[in-house]
Amino acid sequence: MLPLLLSLLSLLLLPSSSCASDFCVADLKGIETPAGFACKKVSSVTVDDFVFTGLGVAGNTSNIIKAAVTLAFVDQFPGINGLGISAGRLDIAVGGVVPLHTHPAGSELLYVVHGYILAGFISSANGVYYKYLKKGDMMVFPQGQLHFQINAGRKTAVAFVSLSSPSPGLQITSFALFANSLPSAVVEKVTFLDDAEVKKLKGVLGGSG
Amino acid sequence: MLPLLLSLLSLLLLPSSSCASDFCVADLKGIETPAGFACKKVSSVTVDDFVFTGLGVAGNTSNIIKAAVTLAFVDQFPGINGLGISAGRLDIAVGGVVPLHTHPAGSELLYVVHGYILAGFISSANGVYYKYLKKGDMMVFPQGQLHFQINAGRKTAVAFVSLSSPSPGLQITSFALFANSLPSAVVEKVTFLDDAEVKKLKGVLGGSG
Amino acid sequence: MLPLLLSLLSLLLLPSSSCASDFCVADLKGIETPAGFACKKVSSVTVDDFVFTGLGVAGNTSNIIKAAVTLAFVDQFPGINGLGISAGRLDIAVGGVVPLHTHPAGSELLYVVHGYILAGFISSANGVYYKYLKKGDMMVFPQGQLHFQINAGRKTAVAFVSLSSPSPGLQITSFALFANSLPSAVVEKVTFLDDAEVKKLKGVLGGSG
Amino acid sequence: MLPLLLSLLSLLLLPSSSCASDFCVADLKGIETPAGFACKKVSSVTVDDFVFTGLGVAGNTSNIIKAAVTLAFVDQFPGINGLGISAGRLDIAVGGVVPLHTHPAGSELLYVVHGYILAGFISSANGVYYKYLKKGDMMVFPQGQLHFQINAGRKTAVAFVSLSSPSPGLQITSFALFANSLPSAVVEKVTFLDDAEVKKLKGVLGGSG
Amino acid sequence: MLPLLLSLLSLLLLPSSSCASDFCVADLKGIETPAGFACKKVSSVTVDDFVFTGLGVAGNTSNIIKAAVTLAFVDQFPGINGLGISAGRLDIAVGGVVPLHTHPAGSELLYVVHGYILAGFISSANGVYYKYLKKGDMMVFPQGQLHFQINAGRKTAVAFVSLSSPSPGLQITSFALFANSLPSAVVEKVTFLDDAEVKKLKGVLGGSG
Amino acid sequence: MLPLLLSLLSLLLLPSSSCASDFCVADLKGIETPAGFACKKVSSVTVDDFVFTGLGVAGNTSNIIKAAVTLAFVDQFPGINGLGISAGRLDIAVGGVVPLHTHPAGSELLYVVHGYILAGFISSANGVYYKYLKKGDMMVFPQGQLHFQINAGRKTAVAFVSLSSPSPGLQITSFALFANSLPSAVVEKVTFLDDAEVKKLKGVLGGSG
Repeated sequence: MLPLLLSLLSLLLLPSSSCASDFCVADLKGIETPAGFACKKVSSVTVDDFVFTGLGVAGNTSNIIKAAVTLAFVDQFPGINGLGISAGRLDIAVGGVVPLHTHPAGSELLYVVHGYILAGFISSANGVYYKYLKKGDMMVFPQGQLHFQINAGRKTAVAFVSLSSPSPGLQITSFALFANSLPSAVVEKVTFLDDAEVKKLKGVLGGSG
Repeated sequence: MLPLLLSLLSLLLLPSSSCASDFCVADLKGIETPAGFACKKVSSVTVDDFVFTGLGVAGNTSNIIKAAVTLAFVDQFPGINGLGISAGRLDIAVGGVVPLHTHPAGSELLYVVHGYILAGFISSANGVYYKYLKKGDMMVFPQGQLHFQINAGRKTAVAFVSLSSPSPGLQITSFALFANSLPSAVVEKVTFLDDAEVKKLKGVLGGSG
Repeated sequence: MLPLLLSLLSLLLLPSSSCASDFCVADLKGIETPAGFACKKVSSVTVDDFVFTGLGVAGNTSNIIKAAVTLAFVDQFPGINGLGISAGRLDIAVGGVVPLHTHPAGSELLYVVHGYILAGFISSANGVYYKYLKKGDMMVFPQGQLHFQINAGRKTAVAFVSLSSPSPGLQITSFALFANSLPSAVVEKVTFLDDAEVKKLKGVLGGSG
Repeated sequence: MLPLLLSLLSLLLLPSSSCASDFCVADLKGIETPAGFACKKVSSVTVDDFVFTGLGVAGNTSNIIKAAVTLAFVDQFPGINGLGISAGRLDIAVGGVVPLHTHPAGSELLYVVHGYILAGFISSANGVYYKYLKKGDMMVFPQGQLHFQINAGRKTAVAFVSLSSPSPGLQITSFALFANSLPSAVVEKVTFLDDAEVKKLKGVLGGSG
Repeated sequence: MLPLLLSLLSLLLLPSSSCASDFCVADLKGIETPAGFACKKVSSVTVDDFVFTGLGVAGNTSNIIKAAVTLAFVDQFPGINGLGISAGRLDIAVGGVVPLHTHPAGSELLYVVHGYILAGFISSANGVYYKYLKKGDMMVFPQGQLHFQINAGRKTAVAFVSLSSPSPGLQITSFALFANSLPSAVVEKVTFLDDAEVKKLKGVLGGSG
Repeated sequence: MLPLLLSLLSLLLLPSSSCASDFCVADLKGIETPAGFACKKVSSVTVDDFVFTGLGVAGNTSNIIKAAVTLAFVDQFPGINGLGISAGRLDIAVGGVVPLHTHPAGSELLYVVHGYILAGFISSANGVYYKYLKKGDMMVFPQGQLHFQINAGRKTAVAFVSLSSPSPGLQITSFALFANSLPSAVVEKVTFLDDAEVKKLKGVLGGSG
């Protein structure tokens, strides 16, 4: 019986053994396409490709925002390539903030692991939705809309976030405005902000122009 | 031959006569779902459901931004429901601007019909891409990323825009910050802007809090 | 200036004020479609629609599997309707297990909040991928493939999971085989299991037939 | 143990008992959306919703094309709603033809069950791909492209087709040109066909104008 | 007129002559991505890339399951790459079975070509749906859910299946449990099966551990 | 503060600096996949990749159809790769026509920039929808369905079109029938057209066979 069985197994199982329907671990040195990275060969994939350990470590919050964002997007975690999901960790020290930002290509779920967080988003229709969240609370921020997280307690807050794309992107509004070479005159024109304010923040955040 | 033919036609064509595979004109008074509005009955659909005439008229630019944005999203043009595309018209008077904004759920193509426009976007990776566009030029703004259009000439500029979703959304950053009830203290915390600046712009743009 | 501004705001913002591009909170009593539930009216949506508090409470593990699975799928958390993501919480007591299962319509990220978990999946090509995970580790289980979680430590393990669909489904293999009316003869035929084994487990798990 | 177990089962299974992640059988009398029909309640779904028996019967080929197309699209087979697939049966008598047509929203696989068929498609780049197919051969026609099937043998040919959408649509070119009210002058202008030819075929196929 | 025409044709047709919108025949030796294989150059594509002849031949059912599954997934039939559909053939001898399995990434339509088949699936909500099918009957198995086919007649049954993805995957539950290196202790823990049963089936099906 | 800030910026921004979530400008000499072309490296992308200037120039209408179609599909405009949208320009001289055609993979919006156009489409259900459009009018043609544009005025008409895919394809019915090597006998069989008509048009349009 065994020889017959083995021929069956080879018939059934070998054809899909080189197949990407199961998963497509990113070859980060390979090409990239609109649907994600090229796949690593299945024969060289191991369980470690599906495990990410970087979110267990607190980020360094000794910075201007007193917060750290640790990403597990496909660039950091190649096992999620093509799987429609990614993750991250927020550490927000007392007085800290994850500034106003969007994820251009994904919705976000935030789960509070420790502490208190004031979180919110503004919809396209200019609706304002914010709430104080405590440990165990979860909030969703719909795709592409401005949202923020502020430590609202007396100890460091920690949150686990997940996003609906392996490459959701992260665009922090004040960095987009003040931390690059976009000319001050343009920034002022498209935001109504004062010249002094724009130049001050460009100085603080390292922008030029 | 005709009776046979008619039976054929009824066989072939009637089964799909009530079918939404062709199109799904929005019933704007009906329910809405994540994939769009419920469909109007095919029997009451006419060619006028597929035609929109509102983009042929110049918008009123007598306002604070000296610009007008006329939308042909699914709420205005029910024929595009489910079809993955929408449109709009920009009229930007001399000195006018379409302020920094995103479309949370769509990429945008801008085609300059008249005049000169300085247009640009900032990527998630904080790359800055902007250029002076003249009549006949076209620029693409990738989904969910901050972009703007400024009249760069001496007469009114007009552009036709199209977007990769019937409901791409439109979130103008300064309106999200200053034209609603988001408390000033929150705005300041999540943007690094000064209290005076925030309160001034809330005053100008009609925000509270 | 204010009247002009208000006319601008009404021009820009009102058209999208009834629009679902921002979000589509599920009306759980309304109709369901392949793309999710019909949307609740925007005018009755509040921030609480975007917040879920059920994952902060430990599940009851006094049961046969010594584990609890608490779901935040769209049926429990209507705010995620149409947003491509959902979540859950696993509490696994000492000796407990989340039995072999699939999510027919989603990939899963598991983040270990407390304790030790032996987690793994089997691919279509019959590859076996499993690993001992500790607090802070994360593992991905690709869509539709068999996977499991076993408490591998000496205290209750807790994990936060997120999935790439608001309705990923959950099919526990042994419940599908032994906890319903599928006739024993059929179960035996399609699995190669012995009659005695099938009948014993049908007894334990409450199946008939 | 049983009470605990039952509480577990109710915890695990009841939440998803009203959930559409499993399937969404079309309520053909209900509303339609861009993603398909509203779902029938799960409690009234039976196995018969997932079974279609109409393809086992030969279609009537006593007509002008000496062929019959029997459809199992969602309008005929509500169980496939939202599942990304549909089917059909072709009976082509000797001398018969399934005329040049497209499926606007789906690719097609054709499997020859009996007889000989000359099948082909023309690509957008005007590439011509056709071949004589015998029993057991399968051919794919990419989405939206013109294709045809001709009986190339001496007995009735039968084929089973499947398509990559529950509502792929079916647009037969000569019916679109000659079997409706599109004015002859327009048909001639947009095809380069002669007036006499157009009017003759409008007569044969029942068109007006 | 001809020169003008030719310039028109080159204008209209050459730009898309290297374009993948028509089709993307898989280069099986090239890279793979989450959306499928890289495309073969259009200039080397022939009609044979779109034709598959392997389903016309009965599979060898002289094996433990008295059945054969012949696949026409993208690995076997490169012409379906990117087209959202695939196919297969089931030969089930008297007493044979296609064991309980899932397709992690696709729904399946089964069309009975010869004989009698008892087919069914179990939903996530643990609903049981099965029926005796005869020649000409068709049944749909929703994506990712456990299903099976048993020969219920006195002669070999043959079915043609199609699936809603070029790479739907195939995971046979008992092979995932007993035909690989997953340790027996783990199998027992995650299924509730007895040690003796697990070891017996690992022996029969060639598993280790 | 600046060093801390810079470390923050590098934490936040560098990880995504090589990421395709922002955009994926096509490397037209690279590989192609079902989801589009491989991406050009971000470090070599400039604003010019997002700008297309070819639509500002009138096409040459001195040809048989007295019309010109200028495309800005991904083959011409690599910046739109993966962004779900493309564009084109129609110049239709007096008496000119854009012949009956489909876009196999996209819906089209047509915006009349100058002149008068008679435009229309035929649905799968054989519904006929056409209308005279003037400057400023817009019409949508649903995916994959036959449509046309005829100059209905006394001067050249110009339209800007946008489509819901970077590679929507373009299949002109009469070119598919008469401008390639599809044998006349096949054309006649699948369209009901006369042999004389087919051969005449093959002569005019450059077809063989």
